[in-house]
Amino acid sequence: MSENLLDKVRIVLVGTTHPGNIGAAARSMKAMGMRRLVLVDPKIFPCAEATARASGADDILQVARVCASLSEAVSGCGAVIGTSARHRALSLPVIDAADAARRIVDWGSQGEVAVVFGREHSGLSNEELELCHRTLRIPTDLNFSSLNLAAAVQIVVYEIRCAAMSAQRPAAADQGLLANPEEMARFYRHLEEAMLAVGFYDPAHPRRLLRRLKRLFNRAMLDREEVQMLRGFLAAIQKKSANPPQGHL
Amino acid sequence: MSENLLDKVRIVLVGTTHPGNIGAAARSMKAMGMRRLVLVDPKIFPCAEATARASGADDILQVARVCASLSEAVSGCGAVIGTSARHRALSLPVIDAADAARRIVDWGSQGEVAVVFGREHSGLSNEELELCHRTLRIPTDLNFSSLNLAAAVQIVVYEIRCAAMSAQRPAAADQGLLANPEEMARFYRHLEEAMLAVGFYDPAHPRRLLRRLKRLFNRAMLDREEVQMLRGFLAAIQKKSANPPQGHL
Repeated sequence: MSENLLDKVRIVLVGTTHPGNIGAAARSMKAMGMRRLVLVDPKIFPCAEATARASGADDILQVARVCASLSEAVSGCGAVIGTSARHRALSLPVIDAADAARRIVDWGSQGEVAVVFGREHSGLSNEELELCHRTLRIPTDLNFSSLNLAAAVQIVVYEIRCAAMSAQRPAAADQGLLANPEEMARFYRHLEEAMLAVGFYDPAHPRRLLRRLKRLFNRAMLDREEVQMLRGFLAAIQKKSANPPQGHL
Repeated sequence: MSENLLDKVRIVLVGTTHPGNIGAAARSMKAMGMRRLVLVDPKIFPCAEATARASGADDILQVARVCASLSEAVSGCGAVIGTSARHRALSLPVIDAADAARRIVDWGSQGEVAVVFGREHSGLSNEELELCHRTLRIPTDLNFSSLNLAAAVQIVVYEIRCAAMSAQRPAAADQGLLANPEEMARFYRHLEEAMLAVGFYDPAHPRRLLRRLKRLFNRAMLDREEVQMLRGFLAAIQKKSANPPQGHL
């Protein structure tokens, strides 16, 4: 379903000068599960450099639509989002990339959406911006707002994927089964015994060190195997403390 | 304030093959207000291609540190985040880029943070991953997870900027100053000695238990006092192992 949503979004590159940027955009799109690339009047396309930079995403390039104008490229879209690095006098509502991505996913459930990237040096013309409903801006440093076109596409398609995925986000823990409170209590008793066996405690505050160790291990959220491993270490410590070492016999 | 935070974060590129990726990373960093680039054993650097791709961010390249090893590059860092596209058998906790960025900004208020990107084709080695406390993963399509190195850097520095901008400096965790890699290395040597002293190791795979314990303690992100406390425990274990217990004299 989120895959379907991603298919509702067209990435539109207008008047791209460097074919490498087209290839890089295709690769970014494919990695983020998107595939609908539309090129408006690209300077050079198809092109070996684009295919090289696509690096395995040449299927995206092969089915890319090439249009003569932006209005043709966004035909049928309910929402058109222009991207811009600059402030404009007569500007549209400006939203940041993360906010835009959430809206794009919302709009995608109702119809087709286009995200439009302008020329490397001159961006989108005023006529082209008039076709847009919103302007998306990527937050950059005030003194250096120069983002490569491919980098801007990468950020936007990444944000769209994150927004599409966040609806059904699975909890991800790649640890084993976490130890339950009873297992942790047994571990802490064992730890206390081993500490006493080697004489490691603060005589004035005998339980303070244990309390701090508990806090540390709680923070780590141990899984069952880790508790078993640590208790193996504690058992070895106890055994060694109870029996004189070989060298001293 | 958030600008200062961004200065706490090092972007570390390990064994980069294509100098263009180094230049693109510098440009991405500068656009996101970051400037501390560290290169571990780059194949070709400095290089005209890197400068060309930096496109105005060559000041970042000029002050980039070049190191021989990752441990040198992350020296002094309280938190080290590795980036990985693959699943690993002995893996660290995996967090996505947005979550990682929020934590990086938190950690940055307590000390230096490194974000580490591996080689274009082979990523980070297991030894390098052992220096990391967390693994950052950029969510990608299951069937095409191939992200260009420069694109991965772009996404991560963008997320860090967004997190730094939205952070209103919440109270830091109740931990003290995080232990740096040198202190952790000494702790792990001490741990290994204590394990050997009590005979706690797997004869078939003598270092496997240590590796798993390292993973556990890296996950916990120890502060300096905790390391001192644990080493106090280890010293008590060693002392007891070397001297016969009273009851047996």
